[in-house]
Amino acid sequence: MRLAIVGLGLIGGSIARAIRSNRSAAAFDSIVAWSPSGSGPAAALADGIIDRATTSLDDALAGADLVVLAADPLTCLDLLDSIAAANRAGDRPTITDVASTKQAIVNRANQGHLAFIGGHPMAGREVSGYGASRADLFLGRPWVLCPGALARPIDFERVEQLVGACGADVHRLAAREHDRAVAGISHLPLALAAALAQAVGDADDWPIARALAAGGWASATRVARGDVTMGAGLAATNAPELARRIRALVTQLEDWLADLEETPDDPQATALRIALRLAAARELLGPAD
Amino acid sequence: MRLAIVGLGLIGGSIARAIRSNRSAAAFDSIVAWSPSGSGPAAALADGIIDRATTSLDDALAGADLVVLAADPLTCLDLLDSIAAANRAGDRPTITDVASTKQAIVNRANQGHLAFIGGHPMAGREVSGYGASRADLFLGRPWVLCPGALARPIDFERVEQLVGACGADVHRLAAREHDRAVAGISHLPLALAAALAQAVGDADDWPIARALAAGGWASATRVARGDVTMGAGLAATNAPELARRIRALVTQLEDWLADLEETPDDPQATALRIALRLAAARELLGPAD
Repeated sequence: MRLAIVGLGLIGGSIARAIRSNRSAAAFDSIVAWSPSGSGPAAALADGIIDRATTSLDDALAGADLVVLAADPLTCLDLLDSIAAANRAGDRPTITDVASTKQAIVNRANQGHLAFIGGHPMAGREVSGYGASRADLFLGRPWVLCPGALARPIDFERVEQLVGACGADVHRLAAREHDRAVAGISHLPLALAAALAQAVGDADDWPIARALAAGGWASATRVARGDVTMGAGLAATNAPELARRIRALVTQLEDWLADLEETPDDPQATALRIALRLAAARELLGPAD
Repeated sequence: MRLAIVGLGLIGGSIARAIRSNRSAAAFDSIVAWSPSGSGPAAALADGIIDRATTSLDDALAGADLVVLAADPLTCLDLLDSIAAANRAGDRPTITDVASTKQAIVNRANQGHLAFIGGHPMAGREVSGYGASRADLFLGRPWVLCPGALARPIDFERVEQLVGACGADVHRLAAREHDRAVAGISHLPLALAAALAQAVGDADDWPIARALAAGGWASATRVARGDVTMGAGLAATNAPELARRIRALVTQLEDWLADLEETPDDPQATALRIALRLAAARELLGPAD
């Protein structure tokens, strides 16, 4: 199988590394990579992680059996349009991607009549770029697959070989279910972390507060230190689900306000109400990993 | 100086360990500890961390020069009342505490005419209890001091020796300034983490979402896995400041909703607006630690 990776940052680079370090991934005969700047492919070629770095997207796609779009969601939409425009009869590679939203991307692939299976490996780091890539990034993690309308058995076979070579576990979901789930466990936490940073960081006592910030603050704001373009792309391509989740969260915060303000002169009674909320949250979270 | 520690969990135990492992902490002649269950003091005595474990609070206080209340905020309020009731003329030990809110506690100490300096070491772990205590917990961390109305020079001297023996840095603040700051960097993140867990965990697709949760979710909900009584006590004793911070956060989330929903058919435009928010948040957070 000839693999083309389009975009060779954290995720694309980690896929190439995983395949190269996995001796049982014999199905992959060659890996070619392209990226807009070319710096990731050049470094990966020097590292012996890929077979060929190319400066032409067309060249990367020519002859590929499996194409992995390893870019942010909005770039994936554009790439699908380009591939659909160039698609020739009889030359139908399997296309997959690794972006964090799926419905908009699957729709676009369907419009372009592509043999597409959307993918989302549930792994990441706050750092980005090829330099941060790791062969074990996906090990034991879920890798969601959301098939497009024109996906063939051969497409499933190829994409599942890719997921298997990365050591991840296939979770097949409808794109809509996927987007709803990640709006809750991934996009809402990002929005919250950014909103928290702005709500507290824009207040006039930020210099005092910042000097006291400890591990809890660092943990609560960690995801807001990630890549801005990536974050904006996933929020924008999952806007209705994210908005629904934000509204559910605001409802929770209104309950907090009611509990905090019901008995201003009786902190013991306030504490009892808040303890119920905290205990319910802890119960839902389950034991720490 | 004879030191009495009231409550010997994570913080009280870490104070005792820090003093015992610090050779320059020669000012501390003896450490006696009491806790409601007695299990922390018994273990610490066996570990050689304290000189005496007692089953009587009165006995722990008798003859102490410095008393550290190492309990949750609401328990500290009760302890201050007990100490004030037992206080005899001519026998005025320095009292300090380590609770995460200060205004309510300083007020109560003033009402009891105690020689009090409120304290808050800005360090912690999600685990609790004496077994989790560590000698280096406070190393290089800020330790806020909020003096009561009747604090004498000798009280500052003693409490600053304690902070120094723990390797922490004194930050002197008015109780109100402290409470406002920690409402932002500590209590709001706790409320948010719990609200996030309930908003997402109570939705009907939680089993699907939970299976996909990765590092971002774990990080965003981490502080909601902490001690429930402690969390409820700090929220209840800092309710007005926390409520103010929650309202500021809801305002931010309303701005997110407006940005997400302004151009439903133009994800590129949505992404530009969200990118501005994420970039502003990142700028406020500064470089990662």
